Amino acid sequence: MRDPYHIALIGCGTVGGGVAKLLQEQPERLAARAGRRLVLRRVVVRDLSRPRPGVPRELITTDLRQVLADPEVHVAVELVGGTSWARNAILDLLAAGKDVVTANKALLALHGGEVFDTARRHNRAVAFEASVAGGIPIIAALSQGLAANQITALQGILNGTCNFILTRMSERSASYAEALAEAQQCGFAEADPTLDVDGTDAAHKLAILAQIAFGTTVPFDAIQRRGIAHIDALDIRYAHELGYTIKLLAETWLSDNQLALHVSPVLLRHNAPLAQVRGAYNAIHVFGDIVGDTLYYGRGAGEMPTASAVVADLIDMAVGRAQRTFHTLRLWSDGDTSLRLRPPGTVRSRFYLRMFVEDRPGVLAEVARVLAEHEISIASVIQHEVPDEEEGQRVQLVIMIHTALSGSFRDAVARIDCLPFLSGPSVYYPVAD
Amino acid sequence: MRDPYHIALIGCGTVGGGVAKLLQEQPERLAARAGRRLVLRRVVVRDLSRPRPGVPRELITTDLRQVLADPEVHVAVELVGGTSWARNAILDLLAAGKDVVTANKALLALHGGEVFDTARRHNRAVAFEASVAGGIPIIAALSQGLAANQITALQGILNGTCNFILTRMSERSASYAEALAEAQQCGFAEADPTLDVDGTDAAHKLAILAQIAFGTTVPFDAIQRRGIAHIDALDIRYAHELGYTIKLLAETWLSDNQLALHVSPVLLRHNAPLAQVRGAYNAIHVFGDIVGDTLYYGRGAGEMPTASAVVADLIDMAVGRAQRTFHTLRLWSDGDTSLRLRPPGTVRSRFYLRMFVEDRPGVLAEVARVLAEHEISIASVIQHEVPDEEEGQRVQLVIMIHTALSGSFRDAVARIDCLPFLSGPSVYYPVAD
Repeated sequence: MRDPYHIALIGCGTVGGGVAKLLQEQPERLAARAGRRLVLRRVVVRDLSRPRPGVPRELITTDLRQVLADPEVHVAVELVGGTSWARNAILDLLAAGKDVVTANKALLALHGGEVFDTARRHNRAVAFEASVAGGIPIIAALSQGLAANQITALQGILNGTCNFILTRMSERSASYAEALAEAQQCGFAEADPTLDVDGTDAAHKLAILAQIAFGTTVPFDAIQRRGIAHIDALDIRYAHELGYTIKLLAETWLSDNQLALHVSPVLLRHNAPLAQVRGAYNAIHVFGDIVGDTLYYGRGAGEMPTASAVVADLIDMAVGRAQRTFHTLRLWSDGDTSLRLRPPGTVRSRFYLRMFVEDRPGVLAEVARVLAEHEISIASVIQHEVPDEEEGQRVQLVIMIHTALSGSFRDAVARIDCLPFLSGPSVYYPVAD
Repeated sequence: MRDPYHIALIGCGTVGGGVAKLLQEQPERLAARAGRRLVLRRVVVRDLSRPRPGVPRELITTDLRQVLADPEVHVAVELVGGTSWARNAILDLLAAGKDVVTANKALLALHGGEVFDTARRHNRAVAFEASVAGGIPIIAALSQGLAANQITALQGILNGTCNFILTRMSERSASYAEALAEAQQCGFAEADPTLDVDGTDAAHKLAILAQIAFGTTVPFDAIQRRGIAHIDALDIRYAHELGYTIKLLAETWLSDNQLALHVSPVLLRHNAPLAQVRGAYNAIHVFGDIVGDTLYYGRGAGEMPTASAVVADLIDMAVGRAQRTFHTLRLWSDGDTSLRLRPPGTVRSRFYLRMFVEDRPGVLAEVARVLAEHEISIASVIQHEVPDEEEGQRVQLVIMIHTALSGSFRDAVARIDCLPFLSGPSVYYPVAD
C-alpha cells in the first residue's frame, strides 16, 4: 500500500464534522477504496472553545499557517464557505503546494477562473463534487461518465429547501409561510433563508454545472433568476388542475449555438421525471447528444450526504484520478469556448399566465387581443364560474400560452397589466416542454 | 497534447458501429476530453462482406492476431458478447499487453475472476461501464462517486425489454404476448427474447453490481431469478388496485452481514422512484450508509447510449484514470470479502398472493388457517363480489401478506396449492418495502 494521504480540514461546522467523523470512524473502508490510508492531520477552526466530538484536540488550530507550512499535508478541504476569507485561504493553500477539495459553490460561481488559474500555475488540482447537489455524483457524471457527449440541456432541482417548501405547498396545501416554517423546524432551511428562496444558491450551482457541461464561464449576473418567495398556493392549485407541478428549476440549454440559463419556478407535467422529486431531494436531468437523457437523484445537502461527496473527492485525489481530470479538462480556463449567451428576450418558451380580473363581458377578448398583437397564441383557458351572488365581482383568469418569444410575452404582460379591469399585476411562469 | 491513443474494435455490430461512428465523427470533442486524440486503428469482424458505413475499409480485418501483434494498439474494445470466443479473445488481448474495454455482462458475471486476474498478472486494466445499464454511469457512481459509502442495498430496473413490456401491460392493458410483439417491432426485444424475459440478463448485471458494491464474487447460480414471461395482466390490475406497480427488479441487500440477491417481478408502491421508470429505460436505486439513497436513470441499451459508456471508458483509459481505479479496487480478486450469501428461505419479505378458488363458504378461512400455521399474518384481502348468476363459480382471491420468512411463505403456498378448492397453482410476488 502507498504512503498515507494527509488531509487538513479548513472549517469544521456541519459538513466538516461529518467529514472528520467519516475519516476517524472508517479508516479501513477508506484505505481499501483509496489504496492508502486517509489521515486527518489538521483541523482549522474559528472558535477553539466549541466542542468538536470525535476530533482529537491536538489536531485543532485557529491558524491556517499551520497547514500552509506543513509539508506533510497533501490536500486541504475548504468548508468555510463565502467568498472573502475562503477565497484567500484557497489561493494561499494552492500557492503553498496543497491540492484543494471544496464545497464552496459561491466561490466557484463567482471566482472559479481565479481559483483554477492559480491551481494550474502551481501545478495543483481542485475537486468540487460537494459544491453541487450534495451526495449526488453529478460533477463526475458530467465530466467523466458523459464525456463522450455534447450536453445539449440540463434541468436541475438544486435547492432542497425550495423543493421541500414547494412539495409541502403542493401536497398539503400549505401556504408559503407555513411550509417555510416547517422547513426551518426540520432543519431543511436556515434561519435566514434568503439565498435559498431567492434562487441565488441554485444559480451558483447552475453556473458550475454550465462550466462543466459547456466549458464556458458564465458571468454570474447573466443568470436570470426568480425565487419562490412570492409563489401563491393558488398557482400551485391551478397548475395542478392543468396537469402540472411547480418546481424551482435551474435550467440551461443550447440552441443555435447560444446558451440560455435561468433559475425560475417552472411548470412541469406531472409525469416528467423531475416532477416526481419530493421533499428535500435534489435531481438533475441531463440531455446528451449521444446518450439521450439521464437523471441523477439524491439528497442535495446535509452533514453526511455532503461529506460523502467530499470524501469521494479525497479518495479521487489520493488515487491520483482527480489530478488527471483537473489537468485534462482545463475548466475555467482562458481558452474556453465562450459560447455566446442567448439574450433573455429571445428564449422561446410556453407560459402560464394568471390574472385577477373583473367578471364582465369583453375581458377575455381584450386579453386575447393584446396577446394576438404580440403574436402569442393561446393553448387553453381556465375561468371558473362564480356563484350567482358574486357575479360582477372579480375572478381568476388562467391562460396557457403556446411557445412564444419570452421578450414578446413579457411585453404583452406589461400591456395587459395596464388594462383597467386587472387587480394587481398578473402572475406568470414558464412551462417546460 | 499527449500522443494519440490507439483503439481496436473487436466486433462491429450495433454498439460497435456506434462507437466507430463517434470516434470518426467527433475527433476534436473526444481529444478535448481525453487530452489526446482517440484514433480507431483496427476493426475485427466476423463477416468481411457486411457493409460498415463510416468505417474505413483498410481498418477492417477478420484476424484478431492483427491486433494482438500490433504494438501501437493501446486498448481493445470487446463488443462480440458471449462467453466462448470473446473470453479467449480478451485473455489473449490482455496477455498481448492491451488494456480492455468491454460491454460483455455475461462474461464478467461468469468469468470475472479469470478476466481480472489475467489483467492484473499482465499489469493491464479492464473497464466495463457499458456492461450494466447502457449509458447510465452506474459503475463509476458505485466505484468512485459513492466510494465513501458502504452500500447497504441496491434495486435496479436493468432490462429495458422487460420494463417496456411491463409498462405496456400496465398502461395499455396489453397482454404479455401483445406487449412482447410491440417490443420486437420497436427494436426493444430480440427475435429470441429468452435471456431478457427469463431474468438472466438482469441477473448478469446484478452479479457485476454486487461485485462493485460489496466487493464479493457471487456464484451466478446463487442468484434466484424469475422472469416476466408468465406474468398475467390480471396481477398487474390487482397490484394497481392495491396501489402498486409490478416491475422486474434486480435486488441485492445486506442484512446481518449476509448478502441477499434475486431477480424477480416485485410490487412497488406507485410513488416509489423506480415505479415511475417507464418504457425501455433503466434505473438503479442505491442505498449507502453515508449518502442515503441516490438514483440513476437513463437508456439501458441501444447503439448510441451504450456507445456513450464505451467511449467514456476509452477516455478514462486515455487519461489514465481507469488504470488507477482498476489497480486500486482489485475487483474480483482472491482477497475479496466473500460475504456470506443469505440462504433464500431466510429472506424476509412482504408478499402478494393470488388464488383462483371456488366461491363457497370456508375457503378464506381455510387459506387463512394455513397461513397462520406458518406464522404468516394477512395485511389485506381482495375478493370481488361476483354477479348472482355466477354464484358458486370460481373467483380470484388476492391476499397481501405482512413481512414473513420467504421459506415459510413458500411452504405455506405449497400447502395452499394442495387445497381441493384451488384451480391451478397460486401466483405470488414479493412486495418491496
